[in-house]
Amino acid sequence: MLQVMVSGALCSALPSIAFAQTQKLAPEYDVIVIGSGFAGLAAAISAAENGAKVAVLEKMQVAGGNSSRSGGMMAIPGSSVQKEQGIEDSPAKLAADMKRIGLGLGDPEHIKVVTEHAAPTFEWTKKQGVVWRTDLTGKGGHSARRCLITEEGTGQGILIPFMKKLKELGVPVLTGMKVIRLDKNKDGRVIGVTALEDYKFGKEDSGKPVEIKAKDGVILAFGGFSADVGYRTRLDPKLTGNLKTTNQPGATAELMREASRIGANIIQADWIQFLPNTSPDEEGMGMGSHFASVGGSLYGLWINTKTGKRFTDEFGDRKTTTDAIFKVLDAGGKTISVTDSVGVASFNKVRPGAMDILRKNGAVKEYATLDDLAKAYGISPDALKQTFAEFNKAIESGKDTEFGRKLDKDIKPLTHAPYYVSEMSPKIHHTMGGIATDTSTRVLSVVDDKPIPGLYAAGECTGGIHGAVRIGANAVMDCLVNGKLAGETVMKDAKK
Amino acid sequence: MLQVMVSGALCSALPSIAFAQTQKLAPEYDVIVIGSGFAGLAAAISAAENGAKVAVLEKMQVAGGNSSRSGGMMAIPGSSVQKEQGIEDSPAKLAADMKRIGLGLGDPEHIKVVTEHAAPTFEWTKKQGVVWRTDLTGKGGHSARRCLITEEGTGQGILIPFMKKLKELGVPVLTGMKVIRLDKNKDGRVIGVTALEDYKFGKEDSGKPVEIKAKDGVILAFGGFSADVGYRTRLDPKLTGNLKTTNQPGATAELMREASRIGANIIQADWIQFLPNTSPDEEGMGMGSHFASVGGSLYGLWINTKTGKRFTDEFGDRKTTTDAIFKVLDAGGKTISVTDSVGVASFNKVRPGAMDILRKNGAVKEYATLDDLAKAYGISPDALKQTFAEFNKAIESGKDTEFGRKLDKDIKPLTHAPYYVSEMSPKIHHTMGGIATDTSTRVLSVVDDKPIPGLYAAGECTGGIHGAVRIGANAVMDCLVNGKLAGETVMKDAKK
Repeated sequence: MLQVMVSGALCSALPSIAFAQTQKLAPEYDVIVIGSGFAGLAAAISAAENGAKVAVLEKMQVAGGNSSRSGGMMAIPGSSVQKEQGIEDSPAKLAADMKRIGLGLGDPEHIKVVTEHAAPTFEWTKKQGVVWRTDLTGKGGHSARRCLITEEGTGQGILIPFMKKLKELGVPVLTGMKVIRLDKNKDGRVIGVTALEDYKFGKEDSGKPVEIKAKDGVILAFGGFSADVGYRTRLDPKLTGNLKTTNQPGATAELMREASRIGANIIQADWIQFLPNTSPDEEGMGMGSHFASVGGSLYGLWINTKTGKRFTDEFGDRKTTTDAIFKVLDAGGKTISVTDSVGVASFNKVRPGAMDILRKNGAVKEYATLDDLAKAYGISPDALKQTFAEFNKAIESGKDTEFGRKLDKDIKPLTHAPYYVSEMSPKIHHTMGGIATDTSTRVLSVVDDKPIPGLYAAGECTGGIHGAVRIGANAVMDCLVNGKLAGETVMKDAKK
Repeated sequence: MLQVMVSGALCSALPSIAFAQTQKLAPEYDVIVIGSGFAGLAAAISAAENGAKVAVLEKMQVAGGNSSRSGGMMAIPGSSVQKEQGIEDSPAKLAADMKRIGLGLGDPEHIKVVTEHAAPTFEWTKKQGVVWRTDLTGKGGHSARRCLITEEGTGQGILIPFMKKLKELGVPVLTGMKVIRLDKNKDGRVIGVTALEDYKFGKEDSGKPVEIKAKDGVILAFGGFSADVGYRTRLDPKLTGNLKTTNQPGATAELMREASRIGANIIQADWIQFLPNTSPDEEGMGMGSHFASVGGSLYGLWINTKTGKRFTDEFGDRKTTTDAIFKVLDAGGKTISVTDSVGVASFNKVRPGAMDILRKNGAVKEYATLDDLAKAYGISPDALKQTFAEFNKAIESGKDTEFGRKLDKDIKPLTHAPYYVSEMSPKIHHTMGGIATDTSTRVLSVVDDKPIPGLYAAGECTGGIHGAVRIGANAVMDCLVNGKLAGETVMKDAKK
C-alpha cells in the first residue's frame, strides 16, 4: 500500500513529507538501497528496471529525505528544452562552470559523467512520470539558462512519480528501518545489512535488529550529514550547533562512519556548504531562499542594512555570497533581498504560489515605498534611494560595473512599488564531500583504491564531484544521474 | 652504533640526510614510534624519559624524513628569547594568527595546546642539546617576530642532538623497517605492528615480515603524503604527478590508509599546501625558498616578469602567495624574488652560508644593474625601475599602500647593486589534514569519536590543527610539541 501525504504543491516549506509504503520485509533481495531521496529512488527504479528484486530502506518514518525539501530544480546542459528554445549549451560548458566554481577540487572524470548523463537522465525521468516545466532558468554560478523545475515547483514533483513507479515495479520503500551495519563476508564482499526494524528517529533504543541479505549489492544513497553537529564540527569546528541547517533532522553521519569503518575512502568531507540566502524567519529550508535567489538574484538586489548599499554580485556562487553575507552579519548589519512588484511577478512565474506562503509565514514583507522599507530596517533612506537609482541605471545600460553581475535579460528597473523584502541568513545546506566512488558509482577502498565488491553509492553521501562549492540545481542532477547509474552498474556487475 | 652522515650545516638542499642506528630488533617494546622526523624522535625521547622501552621504526634507509629538509625554524610565542628582547607576544596571539590564516578550520582546542606548549617544549629541546640562535625572525602570516632558527640553520640542528640523546637513552632508530600493518587484539586495542625488516624503498618486494609488540602503545609520526600522487590526486585532482614536491620520496600515504582501515578518522586531508617560493632550478626542497622568503619577503620584493611589477604582499600567507604566483605563471609570466646587496647581507645573517650554495647551484643569480636584470628576464627596464622607485618610496615612508605589506623594521631602500634574483615556482609541501586526535594525541575512532586504545599520533600525519593553511615555522612547533606530548600521554595511559 502506498501512502502519500502531501500538503500542496509548495510543501517544501514543511519539515518533511510523509511517504510510507508497507510491505513485508523479505530476508533477501538482489539489491538493497539505503535512503529514499532522489538518488535512492532513482537507483531503486533503475535496478528494478534492470531485473533486480529491490528494497529501499529509510530510517525515518517518512520517505523522501532532504529531497522532500528540494526546490525540484535540475541543471540539464544541452537539454531538449534548450535546443527547442535555441539556447546554446553543452555538458562541457557546465563542466567548466563546475571546475571554476568548485575550485578544481571536483574530479574531472566524475564531472564528465554527471554532465554528459544529465540530458538522457532528464528524458528518463519523464518516462518515470516526472513532468517538467519548460521555462529555463539560471542559478548563481551557471553560465547558461539550463535549469528546469518540476511542474509542482518542488522535489515532490520527482518523489511522487518515482514512488508510484516503484509501487508498479513491486519495490517496497520500507520506512523506520535504520541500517546500523554493512555486512561483509570473509572475502570482503558486502553481502547485506543489519537494520533496526520499527526504529523511531530520536528514540535510539527503539527498533529490532534484522539481517537482510543483498545478493547483488548494497547502494548507499543516504544523503549528507548537515544536521550532524558532532561529525561536522570535527571536520569544520566553526559549524557548531548554534548554526541552523536547511536539512531534515535525519541528515546525520552514522552511515558515513560505518562506510569508513568497513574501508570506504571518505574524501573532501570538510567542504560543507551554506545556503546563503535562507530566511531566519523560517525554520529549516523554508521558501525564503527561493525568493532571495530568484526575486533577489535574478530580478532584484541585495542590501546591507547598515550601509543601504549592495555588497556582492547577487548571482555569485554559494560560497562567495555566503562569505559576503557573513561579513555583513559579523559587522552587525543585516542582509536583505529586495525586489518590486514587477520582480515579484517574474518570481511568481518561476515559483507559482510561493509568494502566498511567504506572505503568510512572514518571511517576505511588503512596503508601499522605499521610505517605508528604509524605516523598517533602519536604513538611511537617501542611501537606499541612491542604491536603487544606481542599480536601475545599471539595468538600463545592461552592465553592472559595481559587482560585475551578469544581469538577467528579463530584469526591469526596480521602480514599481510596492517593494518586497526577505531577510537572509545562511544555513548549513549541503555536504560536498563523502564516499569516494569510481565513475560507475562503485565505492572505493581506502586501502587500495579498488572497488569494495558489492558496495555502491550515489548522491550527497558521495564526495569528489562538486569539489569546494556545489552550484545550485546540480544536486538534483547528481542524485538522478548517479542514482540511475548505480542501479545499472550493480546489475551489470551481477551479470559478470 | 650511531651513524651520522651530514654534509655540512646547510644540508637541507640535499635530497636526504643519512642517519642510521643499528641495534638488534626486540620482539616487544613498551612503545613503538613510527617515523623518525621531529615528531617521532621527540615522542621517542619523551616516552623513554617517562620510563618506556622504545623503538623507532623508519622505512627509509636513513632517518630524519622530511625534517632532514627543514629549515629548522620554530615558532615560539611568548618565548624566553622574546622576553629578553622585549618583544610582546603570547600563545593567544599566535592562536589568533592560526585561526585567521587557517580559515577557522583548525580546532581551537588543539591550537590552544600547541601554542601554549611551544615555549616549554622549546626549553625542553635545549635540554636535549638543541642550540638555537637568538635572532628572532618572522614568516608570512606571523603577527610577531617569534621564530627562532637552530644554530646549524637547518633541521639537522634538531635531528642530530635528538639522535644522540636517543643513543644515550638506549633507544634504537631502526631504518629500512616498513610498517605494513597496525595490529589490534580482539578488544580493538592496538598491540603492535607488522613490519618488513630490511625493506628497501622502491623495491616493493623487499623485506621480511616481522611482528613487533608494543605493550603500551604505538605512536604514528610518519609525516605527510605530499609525494604520494595517487593518494593526493584522489583528494585534490589538480595535484597530478606533473607537479613537483619539496618532500623526500618516502612521503607516501600507506600508513594513512592503514590507520583508516583500522578505524582512525581522517579529516581535512584535502588541504594540501604548496611552498610558494621554491626554485624551479633546484630539485626537491632546495634553498631557493629561504632566499625568496627572507631575502625577498623581508628585505626585497617579488616581480611578475611579464609586467615588471609586484603582484602580491610578499609577506602574505602560503596559500595567498601560492595563488598569486600561479596566477602569474598561468598567464605565461615568471615570478622572481629580488633583493640588493644590503638585503643579501641581512639574508646572510638569518641563513649563514646559504648564498654560497645558491650561487653555486645557480638558483640565485647576480646582476650588476637593474638593466641587466631586466634584460635577463625579458622585463621592460622602465617598468622595473619604476617598480623599484615606488617600492623604495614605500620603504622610506614605512607604508606599502599597494599591497599593505607589513614592512620589516630592518628593510632598506633597494639601491645597492648588485641585485640578486631567484625564480619562484610552487611545489607541493605540506599536508595539513590527516589523522584526528584528541588534544593529548590519542587517535580518534571514526565510529564513535573515542580514542582507539593503544594508538597515538603526532606531527604532519595528524589533521585538524593548522586548518586550511599552515603558517611557516609552525610545523616544527607542532611536531615537537605533539611529539613530546605523545610520549608523555602513552606513558600516562600505561599507568592507568
